[in-house]
Amino acid sequence: MSSTEIARRIGNVSERSVRYRIDRLIEEDVIRVRAVVNPKTMGFAVMADIFVEVEPGHVMEVAQKLAEFECVGYVACSTGERDLSIQVYARDNEELYRFVAEVIGNVPGVRRTTTVFVPLLLKHNYEWQIPDSACVDG
Amino acid sequence: MSSTEIARRIGNVSERSVRYRIDRLIEEDVIRVRAVVNPKTMGFAVMADIFVEVEPGHVMEVAQKLAEFECVGYVACSTGERDLSIQVYARDNEELYRFVAEVIGNVPGVRRTTTVFVPLLLKHNYEWQIPDSACVDG
Amino acid sequence: MSSTEIARRIGNVSERSVRYRIDRLIEEDVIRVRAVVNPKTMGFAVMADIFVEVEPGHVMEVAQKLAEFECVGYVACSTGERDLSIQVYARDNEELYRFVAEVIGNVPGVRRTTTVFVPLLLKHNYEWQIPDSACVDG
Amino acid sequence: MSSTEIARRIGNVSERSVRYRIDRLIEEDVIRVRAVVNPKTMGFAVMADIFVEVEPGHVMEVAQKLAEFECVGYVACSTGERDLSIQVYARDNEELYRFVAEVIGNVPGVRRTTTVFVPLLLKHNYEWQIPDSACVDG
Amino acid sequence: MSSTEIARRIGNVSERSVRYRIDRLIEEDVIRVRAVVNPKTMGFAVMADIFVEVEPGHVMEVAQKLAEFECVGYVACSTGERDLSIQVYARDNEELYRFVAEVIGNVPGVRRTTTVFVPLLLKHNYEWQIPDSACVDG
Amino acid sequence: MSSTEIARRIGNVSERSVRYRIDRLIEEDVIRVRAVVNPKTMGFAVMADIFVEVEPGHVMEVAQKLAEFECVGYVACSTGERDLSIQVYARDNEELYRFVAEVIGNVPGVRRTTTVFVPLLLKHNYEWQIPDSACVDG
Amino acid sequence: MSSTEIARRIGNVSERSVRYRIDRLIEEDVIRVRAVVNPKTMGFAVMADIFVEVEPGHVMEVAQKLAEFECVGYVACSTGERDLSIQVYARDNEELYRFVAEVIGNVPGVRRTTTVFVPLLLKHNYEWQIPDSACVDG
Amino acid sequence: MSSTEIARRIGNVSERSVRYRIDRLIEEDVIRVRAVVNPKTMGFAVMADIFVEVEPGHVMEVAQKLAEFECVGYVACSTGERDLSIQVYARDNEELYRFVAEVIGNVPGVRRTTTVFVPLLLKHNYEWQIPDSACVDG
Repeated sequence: MSSTEIARRIGNVSERSVRYRIDRLIEEDVIRVRAVVNPKTMGFAVMADIFVEVEPGHVMEVAQKLAEFECVGYVACSTGERDLSIQVYARDNEELYRFVAEVIGNVPGVRRTTTVFVPLLLKHNYEWQIPDSACVDG
Repeated sequence: MSSTEIARRIGNVSERSVRYRIDRLIEEDVIRVRAVVNPKTMGFAVMADIFVEVEPGHVMEVAQKLAEFECVGYVACSTGERDLSIQVYARDNEELYRFVAEVIGNVPGVRRTTTVFVPLLLKHNYEWQIPDSACVDG
Repeated sequence: MSSTEIARRIGNVSERSVRYRIDRLIEEDVIRVRAVVNPKTMGFAVMADIFVEVEPGHVMEVAQKLAEFECVGYVACSTGERDLSIQVYARDNEELYRFVAEVIGNVPGVRRTTTVFVPLLLKHNYEWQIPDSACVDG
Repeated sequence: MSSTEIARRIGNVSERSVRYRIDRLIEEDVIRVRAVVNPKTMGFAVMADIFVEVEPGHVMEVAQKLAEFECVGYVACSTGERDLSIQVYARDNEELYRFVAEVIGNVPGVRRTTTVFVPLLLKHNYEWQIPDSACVDG
Repeated sequence: MSSTEIARRIGNVSERSVRYRIDRLIEEDVIRVRAVVNPKTMGFAVMADIFVEVEPGHVMEVAQKLAEFECVGYVACSTGERDLSIQVYARDNEELYRFVAEVIGNVPGVRRTTTVFVPLLLKHNYEWQIPDSACVDG
Repeated sequence: MSSTEIARRIGNVSERSVRYRIDRLIEEDVIRVRAVVNPKTMGFAVMADIFVEVEPGHVMEVAQKLAEFECVGYVACSTGERDLSIQVYARDNEELYRFVAEVIGNVPGVRRTTTVFVPLLLKHNYEWQIPDSACVDG
Repeated sequence: MSSTEIARRIGNVSERSVRYRIDRLIEEDVIRVRAVVNPKTMGFAVMADIFVEVEPGHVMEVAQKLAEFECVGYVACSTGERDLSIQVYARDNEELYRFVAEVIGNVPGVRRTTTVFVPLLLKHNYEWQIPDSACVDG
Repeated sequence: MSSTEIARRIGNVSERSVRYRIDRLIEEDVIRVRAVVNPKTMGFAVMADIFVEVEPGHVMEVAQKLAEFECVGYVACSTGERDLSIQVYARDNEELYRFVAEVIGNVPGVRRTTTVFVPLLLKHNYEWQIPDSACVDG
């Protein structure tokens, strides 16, 4: 979304003041400007959610260990049936499976993994815009 | 990661040729430069994964409908027990719950939702870097 | 916990000032003085958690309907596999089962119920005391 | 419910005799008069059900250990998929998650925990009244 | 267990008084003398537990309908994930499967069935003896 | 079912020849005459199915050990999520729970138990009759 | 396995008599000689198990309908949580997902599908040999 | 499918050139000519899917060990709740159960098995034909 579009959307605001506010938002760490890689164009055609069950009391150290792997793009603590939820990118299904079975499965504290392939992505977090209002109203 | 760091990492390459290649990567849609919003600084303190079961044969239209909601930051087709996996941002747990129960629950074709809160995020997709090699080797 | 005990616990505070603060806490709705019924002495020997799955979009009205039943002692919105979590008291297992199967099962919008008996209660909410500090520190 | 209201409800009974019976009910441990804390006003904005799976043969000792934590408001033995069902209060989702992952997860005998947030409470046990008759009839 | 064995077990009681008490137990409906069929010798080589999920509010009528089928040997109301638990006898796996899929599946009110084969039976109810004392003590 | 009723049902057969065939069926172990205890009249008011997960490779020895307990009335090998399916009788819910948690949970090789109460029994195995024909035809 | 190898394995039998017996086995429908396609060489790089839940009473007609699809290589009736178990071949994950979501999901009687990718196949049915003896002995 | 039928189906191609192409397909390992055993005619009347959960990091070695058993006809890596999916043939339900409980259960690294009987097979992999086009189009 360009500064012009933002200006038009908010209304009654010059493009220049929009640019000024964006600079302040970056300073205040509200937004960050990032180069986002498109994994498909890099040959990483396959993506999956891996739900990881961990030995109780070791969730944090396993989470930090998993976040260090380069092909792991997302690590979150989860509150459902599984302790951690991560996303893995790979060139094909077999490479992905072997990474989960042979690398993640051997991280100390990992007790069980469930792999769920994500064959189609419709909306990604980095496209997320600031909602005008609370969810339930709009 | 700055151009200088990339140049150092690859080795034996000038910073200028790195910059040139980044421009080409953007042209070829391999990377995109984005302003990524930090939801916490905007007051969206709470995030959850919502797994959505859909009436068979209506997955695609429900996915597109859900992607239109502003507080939905991620929509993916999933191959496990549930048909869709989405992420929702809200100001507090009750707002998030009401959005799922009253808004998503009323989208035609939605049969059942499971909400899993994400209280802690260790690594986010937009921090993902291009792995040097395949997962299983490294 | 008597005013004297509270005074001793906080330290360096008179019992009288403790009593004064309790009166203010009641005025500000921080604490309420209640007559809590012991269900066992009333012949309600059996208690169970009932997890209720509801037609999407009807959670709130089903929750309000269930809260009206006299033998339902607790109604909460839940974010896991089931939409609502309630507690039911009954004289014996069969009475409890029949209430779930024949009464709750016929509330419009209820799709499925799972009954989990609670044969032993070690700590109840109304015994809950104000923690001195956050959970993770203590 | 005041004595006057009870008298009116039962009918044909003076308020004084109601008061007399309440005194006897307290003596016989049928009802208890308690100061019930409202956790929200104390800053404990978040509540969750935690289902705990325990090493077989150690359920009772784990239950007693969990009941000692100040931010645990409810401990019950359960007969479903999980051995214990507890309720935890915390200031926010991350504090609650860390308490479960780092404190409960390190209690000896705890094998696995499942956290289900309770974003909305419609009816609480201490509001429970003595039903006039059995559940299935009324 | 013969009267003589019972007499010996209880001790200090004549066989005759044991016989007299057995006659009274039959009169008082404590025990029943039955001819129990051995299904294997009749060609019913295969047995399975079928867990039946029922439309809410119709559990009792479905239970009574299922109890009328001759090859259904057991019908119980259950309080877990499924509403009813039944046992079916058949000549082979395919006959059993077809009975569940084509006959039980067409009983009005049946929503879903889960079949769990029972390949080996170590102890059957009709061999059950009266325990000397409560379970937890002995 | 008396010999007279069987004779009438089969048709064209004398009661005497029915009695003769029953004697042969007992000799050939097709039917057994048993005194079946009614647990409710003995004070065992509560019954539950317990599904037992066992350390792999130890199913048979755990099954034999469980079959020795007097309050266990049924032990079967199961082919679903859990390895063994047993039935337990007790005087009340707490006694039943304590037997599962403290006795069965301490049998070596038992890894996890799931208790499902059976509040209502509509048809019992010892009432099972020989079907006239295969299930799917009738 | 060639006739010569079979002859050597059985021992004390001429290759000619092995060939004669193979011809008889084909006549008696014990073995069939088939041209088995290797899906990977045909561009069908991806395979998945799809577990299908069907409206009760319609399992057989849905099974026959699914068996007609060319990219469905296996259709079996299953006795677990799901009614049917099928295998689907596709060129990539997205094609496979769309086939399940848009084609199988629209077959009348299909209520729910669960897709489990099979990234690696170690042993295939058409390599199965006749065991020398029963499983439990060998 | 005979060469003549293939020729007719493709159209405008002689039977001889079809035969020539089949020979090349065999050379290029696209198709294999196999003698496929019909297990039922060999007395292996019973078949089941076994889902195997494995100690993390040992999936590959367990898979190879299971593939060596003669009565195991299929071994695949799976990405759902369980790590491996295998098929077992046996003479009857008890033999199959004992093989899983006593043989597979004792393979080092196996943590849990779930047995799902397959009472009816409608379409088998070796009948699979090369689809004319992608799944989603046809």
